[in-house]
Amino acid sequence: MDASTEQEKDVILGNLVRAVQILESSEYFGLLMPEVRVNLVYSMENATSPKDVAGIDGRITLVSGRVKAAGYPKFGASDHMARLIIEVRKYDRRYRAGINFAWTPEISTFLEEYCKKMGWDYAGIDRSLEPKEFSSVEGMSMPWKIKTLVEMCGGKVPKIFYEGPGLGKEPLTVLLGKDAVEVATDVVEISRMYALKHK
Amino acid sequence: MDASTEQEKDVILGNLVRAVQILESSEYFGLLMPEVRVNLVYSMENATSPKDVAGIDGRITLVSGRVKAAGYPKFGASDHMARLIIEVRKYDRRYRAGINFAWTPEISTFLEEYCKKMGWDYAGIDRSLEPKEFSSVEGMSMPWKIKTLVEMCGGKVPKIFYEGPGLGKEPLTVLLGKDAVEVATDVVEISRMYALKHK
Amino acid sequence: MDASTEQEKDVILGNLVRAVQILESSEYFGLLMPEVRVNLVYSMENATSPKDVAGIDGRITLVSGRVKAAGYPKFGASDHMARLIIEVRKYDRRYRAGINFAWTPEISTFLEEYCKKMGWDYAGIDRSLEPKEFSSVEGMSMPWKIKTLVEMCGGKVPKIFYEGPGLGKEPLTVLLGKDAVEVATDVVEISRMYALKHK
Amino acid sequence: MDASTEQEKDVILGNLVRAVQILESSEYFGLLMPEVRVNLVYSMENATSPKDVAGIDGRITLVSGRVKAAGYPKFGASDHMARLIIEVRKYDRRYRAGINFAWTPEISTFLEEYCKKMGWDYAGIDRSLEPKEFSSVEGMSMPWKIKTLVEMCGGKVPKIFYEGPGLGKEPLTVLLGKDAVEVATDVVEISRMYALKHK
Repeated sequence: MDASTEQEKDVILGNLVRAVQILESSEYFGLLMPEVRVNLVYSMENATSPKDVAGIDGRITLVSGRVKAAGYPKFGASDHMARLIIEVRKYDRRYRAGINFAWTPEISTFLEEYCKKMGWDYAGIDRSLEPKEFSSVEGMSMPWKIKTLVEMCGGKVPKIFYEGPGLGKEPLTVLLGKDAVEVATDVVEISRMYALKHK
Repeated sequence: MDASTEQEKDVILGNLVRAVQILESSEYFGLLMPEVRVNLVYSMENATSPKDVAGIDGRITLVSGRVKAAGYPKFGASDHMARLIIEVRKYDRRYRAGINFAWTPEISTFLEEYCKKMGWDYAGIDRSLEPKEFSSVEGMSMPWKIKTLVEMCGGKVPKIFYEGPGLGKEPLTVLLGKDAVEVATDVVEISRMYALKHK
Repeated sequence: MDASTEQEKDVILGNLVRAVQILESSEYFGLLMPEVRVNLVYSMENATSPKDVAGIDGRITLVSGRVKAAGYPKFGASDHMARLIIEVRKYDRRYRAGINFAWTPEISTFLEEYCKKMGWDYAGIDRSLEPKEFSSVEGMSMPWKIKTLVEMCGGKVPKIFYEGPGLGKEPLTVLLGKDAVEVATDVVEISRMYALKHK
Repeated sequence: MDASTEQEKDVILGNLVRAVQILESSEYFGLLMPEVRVNLVYSMENATSPKDVAGIDGRITLVSGRVKAAGYPKFGASDHMARLIIEVRKYDRRYRAGINFAWTPEISTFLEEYCKKMGWDYAGIDRSLEPKEFSSVEGMSMPWKIKTLVEMCGGKVPKIFYEGPGLGKEPLTVLLGKDAVEVATDVVEISRMYALKHK
């Protein structure tokens, strides 16, 4: 590794450390915990594969009701979210980080209203509409999903989107941002506002 | 708590500690890790609610490719698996512990053969057949599932069974046993035999 | 392992799980954290070596100001505290568990008064008085220490005692009890009373 | 925080993440584990207090014989090592990171030889020579120690040094470097060479 690559990796890992502290300090983010647990990824500028994207090793879970990262930030620690951010960046280079969290009809109704207020695009993919020729071929599903979202949003990648319930697949919301700290800060605020409405 | 309840709780928590050591020492159990992660539960003799069933706080995950419990064993740490074991015990009091792990067509084919050799019942629930009047009412789904399985197995609860893919639900295999150490020992052996066939 | 040995091990490990929960829930126990960190041990009835004594793997530390066990309870996880409890049991079979925590002149003054109120013996060993023939021979130091304490307390092992500062050795207080939960409960109450006086 | 301070913090935290991975991957570093456990610190360029120095929250310990960080890197997580690096930087701005590890006569003999080969200064402080007017005043001890070391090494801060056994104080070795990854890499190589000689 040359020195500038090392420095870029340190910035990414350190930003994820600060992002995890923000998530772990949140009283409400646990309300958005999906069954598959949460991952938070942050991509190198020129990422081409999941090993160029750092995520949280072992994902982020709930222990005794508190948000808790299972391991350290690490390059290559995520597969699904890493491929997602790489695909997103083919359309919009401003996004380098993303997080997944729970999707339910209640969360979705809340997010629609919240995004309107924030001026953020919000869109969803209906997995049942995915053509067989994409879903059945390894690695074809993600490009179809992101392309579909971009078409729905007039050529832009929406800042928040969801993948609806699929057969054997938990529905999930995804939030994007320029770095991990921005993403963590946004999702913590979302969970706080959601808690105020639904508790 | 009276002294005998305390002693029963200690036995359960300590047995879970030993079971986690068995899982964490396995080279192969990670191959069976589902997206929702693993929980392992062990029930009090007279459990009536999830707080009488101990599980692993934060579930069991993979960190750096190694099996790792996120937290300590704790009463009330599981909901789904806890309700499952309580329902199972209405039919068969010998089972007090259970674990969930991944289900795929390949794993299922392997388990069919493996269970034949072991003389264990193996059966599965097709979630799409679940009547609306059960799936739509909170708490009605589990009784229907276990009743269906028992009917399929001539009145007995099968030692291994699966819940197939549902809309928004990951398919999962469940293994039952008399205590957590037995369940962990069995599932580690299953993962070892599965690895021999599929690696 | 025969079934009764397994059951004894489960009771010990599970009791340590509950004891750790008690320590981790304490707001004040962190005030008594020594530099060498804390270990909490619980011995088999017939322990003859450290592998028959369970302790906390990686010890108990402070993370973000909160008491946190680094690992799970495990047989053989402690050396010093394990040898201490084995030696104690040569004089008094009621003690099967022990914990170490910080010693300072302030803590010691507090404990003297506290033990008087509780009717507990409290005594300390001056490490500088330890004869060379014991301190210089591996394994001779612990028998000398416990024997000295017993002589100071009229033939009894004191429930609390300390080892004063030695050359290269941090001074430490030790609290004994019948099981890990009793020891954790006692030390949490001590830390609470100490906090009331010194904060 | 302005953007450049944020970036500096991310680089430091991320570099500590990579350093911890190096330590945790070492087969031998556990041989140098002191009773007080290890901390590894990395200082901001203009650090004036421990909150400007990042360390490992909960320190680095051994769990099941493997090196394991108890928590995440965090600013303000160290006191002693943080004050040490701040004091060191009054003499030599190249050093921004440091780690402590065990000191024994055997380790010291090995290090003398090792440092000779590497061309590194190696020196030690005899705590019994510390004047009462420094040791008895909070915050005076560290300046005296570093000043004494610098005088011993002809005006330079030695890359490795130790603080010998004190009354109630475990002796410790300290290794300095330009960043946390350098320090971790050096100490892992030291532990590997020490293991080859002493195992």
